[in-house]
Amino acid sequence: MKFIADIIIMPLKELLDPQGKAVNNSLHNLGLSEVQDVRIGKHIKLTIEAADFAKADSIAADACKKLLANQVMESYSYTIIKE
Amino acid sequence: MKFIADIIIMPLKELLDPQGKAVNNSLHNLGLSEVQDVRIGKHIKLTIEAADFAKADSIAADACKKLLANQVMESYSYTIIKE
Repeated sequence: MKFIADIIIMPLKELLDPQGKAVNNSLHNLGLSEVQDVRIGKHIKLTIEAADFAKADSIAADACKKLLANQVMESYSYTIIKE
Repeated sequence: MKFIADIIIMPLKELLDPQGKAVNNSLHNLGLSEVQDVRIGKHIKLTIEAADFAKADSIAADACKKLLANQVMESYSYTIIKE
């Protein structure tokens, strides 16, 4: 069965996000001064071939821990749906 | 009122995603060969101060169109919640 894992990787709240800060300034320059804060992370979509939901879940968790997220600076969360 | 806009910006389906391809190869090298495809985009969280939901919605749409998404190569979607 095919599963889609939607993974969100964001910088930890405690850390500065210079890219987000730069985008925030740009939005203000464009006249969108109502935007108060911007945080920028990654959105990763994995297509996983697995026998069942539990297996797809463990593959997505493995991918996050081993490669996708740097847990010193980033947090991750994901949802899995059956395609 | 404060609203949080969660914006997802992904490369269009029709386009190659070399970053995703590289991550796919790396996952296979790590033994996660069940992963068949990887697409990588951006996840952007805006904190918006607005009078109502409709206003926050129009600010998020403006931010996507004017700055965040390059609509030639990327698609965007977002959800807005009241904080």
